[in-house]
Amino acid sequence: MNRKALHLISYGLYVVTSADGKALNGQIVNTVMQVASSPPMVAVAINKENLTCEYIRKSRVFAASVLGTDTPMEVIGRFGFRSGRDIDKFEGVRYRTGITGAPVVLDHTLAYIEVEVTREVDVGTHVLFIGEVVDADILKEGEPMTYTYYHQVIGGKTPEKATVYIGDEG
Amino acid sequence: MNRKALHLISYGLYVVTSADGKALNGQIVNTVMQVASSPPMVAVAINKENLTCEYIRKSRVFAASVLGTDTPMEVIGRFGFRSGRDIDKFEGVRYRTGITGAPVVLDHTLAYIEVEVTREVDVGTHVLFIGEVVDADILKEGEPMTYTYYHQVIGGKTPEKATVYIGDEG
Repeated sequence: MNRKALHLISYGLYVVTSADGKALNGQIVNTVMQVASSPPMVAVAINKENLTCEYIRKSRVFAASVLGTDTPMEVIGRFGFRSGRDIDKFEGVRYRTGITGAPVVLDHTLAYIEVEVTREVDVGTHVLFIGEVVDADILKEGEPMTYTYYHQVIGGKTPEKATVYIGDEG
Repeated sequence: MNRKALHLISYGLYVVTSADGKALNGQIVNTVMQVASSPPMVAVAINKENLTCEYIRKSRVFAASVLGTDTPMEVIGRFGFRSGRDIDKFEGVRYRTGITGAPVVLDHTLAYIEVEVTREVDVGTHVLFIGEVVDADILKEGEPMTYTYYHQVIGGKTPEKATVYIGDEG
């Protein structure tokens, strides 16, 4: 098997957030997709070791903020390469609390989607959370950041905890 | 809720195929993603009314062929807007039978991924099939067709049975 073939699957880039009481957390993911049309259902895969996974398991809600191509590496680094166990990721970040209680990141966000989780599937390294979209809106015009754009244009790396991590990108 | 916000999720474009004995079928989907890293797991959402859904439910396998940007509308039309109940979609199509028994479409395909289904989740209009990748390879160089490219560059439409269908695109 050539695992590099899996890198030809296309993705966007999102901040997926959740809350545990007043504690907020979020992380960068590429693994968001709509899995049913009516009612609209959305799925996200989150690494089991991540704090966001813990929060979604407890709260049964998450919000996905769709990042635009203008998102600086600094924002992606903060949410994607640090742990909410070490820093408060929302310190100094503009957000509003969504109807689910999960925070919606406002800067560089083109749209948000809030989800109430109805199914949780253990897929090994990750948990796939599936749920009903309870709110969604477009916040501003722009081009969504694709995972390809992230790699090719802004030189982003794949963290070890991503589903698409292979380990040979140096 | 503004369902158009869901259209800012990014996807690629794939022919997802399966087999029922000697009968082959496949359809165009945008809803493929890798949901775990090690072992690699992949998920696909398929409309319950589609013949491909029936075949995957029976055979517990599917193959996803990653389409390149050079894929003509004719190929997408054949696999995406016709039913395998009415035509033999593989008539005149170059393919090879994968190790799962599912056919891998060869023309315009950059890479293929073969999956043995381990979980099947009913998400309403669609079934989410989740499974382990048992084979995958790159077939040729090229740019993967994104769903955005399909809409904006080659003028593709969203069929009613897609997860992302809203009904107002005219």
